[in-house]
Amino acid sequence: MSSTTERNEKKPLAILTEDPVSWKGQSLVSVAQITPKGFELLVTISQQMRDIVRSEGGDDRLKHKVLATIFYEASTRTSCSFQAAMSRLGGTFIHVDGQGNSSAAKKKESLEDTIKCLECYVDAIVLRHPETGSVPKVVLSTTKPVLNAGDGIGEHPTQALLDSFTIWDELKDDPKIVVFLGDLKHGRTVHSLAKLLSQLRPQSKLILRFCSPQILSIPDSILEYCKNNGVQYEIFEDATKACQDAQILYVTRIQKERFETEEAYESVKGCYVVDNALMDKVPKNMIVLHPLPRVDEIATEVDADPRAAYFRQMENGMYVRMAILALVLGKSSP
Amino acid sequence: MSSTTERNEKKPLAILTEDPVSWKGQSLVSVAQITPKGFELLVTISQQMRDIVRSEGGDDRLKHKVLATIFYEASTRTSCSFQAAMSRLGGTFIHVDGQGNSSAAKKKESLEDTIKCLECYVDAIVLRHPETGSVPKVVLSTTKPVLNAGDGIGEHPTQALLDSFTIWDELKDDPKIVVFLGDLKHGRTVHSLAKLLSQLRPQSKLILRFCSPQILSIPDSILEYCKNNGVQYEIFEDATKACQDAQILYVTRIQKERFETEEAYESVKGCYVVDNALMDKVPKNMIVLHPLPRVDEIATEVDADPRAAYFRQMENGMYVRMAILALVLGKSSP
Amino acid sequence: MSSTTERNEKKPLAILTEDPVSWKGQSLVSVAQITPKGFELLVTISQQMRDIVRSEGGDDRLKHKVLATIFYEASTRTSCSFQAAMSRLGGTFIHVDGQGNSSAAKKKESLEDTIKCLECYVDAIVLRHPETGSVPKVVLSTTKPVLNAGDGIGEHPTQALLDSFTIWDELKDDPKIVVFLGDLKHGRTVHSLAKLLSQLRPQSKLILRFCSPQILSIPDSILEYCKNNGVQYEIFEDATKACQDAQILYVTRIQKERFETEEAYESVKGCYVVDNALMDKVPKNMIVLHPLPRVDEIATEVDADPRAAYFRQMENGMYVRMAILALVLGKSSP
Repeated sequence: MSSTTERNEKKPLAILTEDPVSWKGQSLVSVAQITPKGFELLVTISQQMRDIVRSEGGDDRLKHKVLATIFYEASTRTSCSFQAAMSRLGGTFIHVDGQGNSSAAKKKESLEDTIKCLECYVDAIVLRHPETGSVPKVVLSTTKPVLNAGDGIGEHPTQALLDSFTIWDELKDDPKIVVFLGDLKHGRTVHSLAKLLSQLRPQSKLILRFCSPQILSIPDSILEYCKNNGVQYEIFEDATKACQDAQILYVTRIQKERFETEEAYESVKGCYVVDNALMDKVPKNMIVLHPLPRVDEIATEVDADPRAAYFRQMENGMYVRMAILALVLGKSSP
Repeated sequence: MSSTTERNEKKPLAILTEDPVSWKGQSLVSVAQITPKGFELLVTISQQMRDIVRSEGGDDRLKHKVLATIFYEASTRTSCSFQAAMSRLGGTFIHVDGQGNSSAAKKKESLEDTIKCLECYVDAIVLRHPETGSVPKVVLSTTKPVLNAGDGIGEHPTQALLDSFTIWDELKDDPKIVVFLGDLKHGRTVHSLAKLLSQLRPQSKLILRFCSPQILSIPDSILEYCKNNGVQYEIFEDATKACQDAQILYVTRIQKERFETEEAYESVKGCYVVDNALMDKVPKNMIVLHPLPRVDEIATEVDADPRAAYFRQMENGMYVRMAILALVLGKSSP
Repeated sequence: MSSTTERNEKKPLAILTEDPVSWKGQSLVSVAQITPKGFELLVTISQQMRDIVRSEGGDDRLKHKVLATIFYEASTRTSCSFQAAMSRLGGTFIHVDGQGNSSAAKKKESLEDTIKCLECYVDAIVLRHPETGSVPKVVLSTTKPVLNAGDGIGEHPTQALLDSFTIWDELKDDPKIVVFLGDLKHGRTVHSLAKLLSQLRPQSKLILRFCSPQILSIPDSILEYCKNNGVQYEIFEDATKACQDAQILYVTRIQKERFETEEAYESVKGCYVVDNALMDKVPKNMIVLHPLPRVDEIATEVDADPRAAYFRQMENGMYVRMAILALVLGKSSP
């Protein structure tokens, strides 16, 4: 958390541990706040949430609590899963669309003032903003928990946490080989997940494999982060080879607009379509994840494969967010 | 349901009968799913809903249930009545505006994927989409009930059902003569209601009268549908004559933009304004319906006439949607 | 209420008194409806609401009640505080964005019809509309309570009420000297608050001071209103002098676009920045209010001053709106 030194001097971000009290009233800005034992707590409560939703639909532990979801950038999946999570725990939400027509957008109020007003009305705030660093900055002047739902190319901690939850939940064990496939240069979710895995299992036998065309390869800073945490990494260009003995394949979209020429794009896109042909060549129990939305990097024919876990991953997003809301609002038990 | 043959081979749409179990967990895509006895069940439960709302405001039978309302086209009335319906039964909703700024709109995700993600979070989905056939197509790949809130010029079953409910509720008896007035060529609600009435009372003494300028006359396919169901129809151009002995007058808007010339529009618009002068000439107990919004085809002076039932019809929309939500979520009793 | 003569002939606006029954089922269109004793009732219930929120988060007195918030003009603060207020009392809300993409906006339905439809679904309506006089006009044809959330340069009664509530709540006594600072020509909140204070304490020792550059001075009609109510007023241009012996400083934004020349703007903006330097020169217990959003007329350094009450004022907005909703929905007691 070197970049947060200045912030820490003013108002340190809480370290979130296996003690639920350490979460209560705290903001979640970065996965760096989560200890390995804290993650285990989150996994346990998320699984409890799934049981509750499947048996009863929800409970009333957040009754009379109000959440604000404020999105300065659209993200249907993230906003809807937080809103459903809050609803299923008996709470309510108000939504602010910070784009376009909102008065927040029009009246040039500072982000700090907008959030300080909203926290007069609600018990917690989910904030997404396109500007990197905006969410940690806002947290300096708030008194209610703020949950970072993505700040530009900064952090999106609940996404990394739901990805990690899904890995442990699917494997029922520590992962040994995790493959990241696609545009590893620009994909924020890849960076966050690689860092979080390194942080959760430092000095372990975990191997992270990064498979991409050279021009979209993983930044050195991420490799450095792995190394510093004692986690091995390997670089691949061939998807089939990368998947050998792997338990997890994490696919991201290759965005055509990132390429300088049409030819460059055409030269690589073919090898990175996960279809039944590829699935035939990879381990029989290798789980496929994707943060979604996908365009065509996973063929819809794969959806019926039991190894395709990306819709289960979506669903887990709600359970993990229910757990986080329950924890920061001091209601980890019903 | 000839157009659904392909769908039916894969995943037949449920036939919705007088047995509440036949509704549970099912999608409502087309009025063709509803049997005459199924409609009677819906009428009974909708009336119960009205009693509950008027005495208590609502109940808690859908507690911990979450509805998604996703609208790729604006429809304030339809979305609000579904949202209020869900709220009054103790459930909650999340809303996705599929237009403009939404990420669904921006990221080019397929409609199927968007809906498959949303159903990870919620118990049922209300979907409106401008593309005809989009909703039945989506239903093929979903596991949660999807309620069609309009797919282009396709179907809008809850509108036809609330229109029919209002007819029976106002008359306390089967209608004998129903008049459709206005633009019968383009009006989706007219087509759906005419088909539903034919289907609910086939081989009956029901007479459907279609009154419009020739250039806006009812399509032959609808007349064919009536004929095949053994329902009589009559064609009119004069509103007063059409209303003779009628119990129901269903008015729709004549949209100026449908006419090729200003003169063509001017030539007909006059005869189709329902005002007090017209109301003086029609049966003393003839009920006036309109799907709303109106522009000027019903003068506001008519609102005070006890025969003007279009705002009661609006209100019924909520009760019918409450009944549908309760049925598909398996809670037809509190 | 001279401008409401025509309305009163048709459907008089209720006078809202110390008897909760006088509020039940009534619309709140104008502060002119509120008697001094009615305001005392509102203060008492608002304070109760604060206690409830701080101890329990809310209660269930509005369970199964549904509120519609319909905004033809964005106002994040007003809509969010009403929505949170409704939620905290156990009710729910549906929101209609009357701008841009809404069908209300597209289909040219009259405002009266839109509201008449919405009231079929809900128990009360919060309405904001840019056109002055639109809300009182709509109230003529509705049967459910309509709460005016701002009609152009007309009224915004809940703002004036929360401002007044904050004054009494902060002072625990009647104010003796209230200073209005900034653009007093265009500021609707200043006009409403000045009128409300005059109405609440007519023939009293209350002094209202209006401090602005000459080109942005308070309209004569407001001064007339004070005079007719036996309330003294004084005109200032110097902020420090205006604040002498004052208990309340109500700051509003000076909008650059109101000035004819850049020079005119530059000539005055300096004197009206409330910063620590100014705060050093004013009374030690003078409370600073602002309707927010601010741009730079109050320096953020002032936020930490205990006299800066504008965020408490925001928070009070929710309590006052909870009290109003409870009163008009007949649930002033839990």
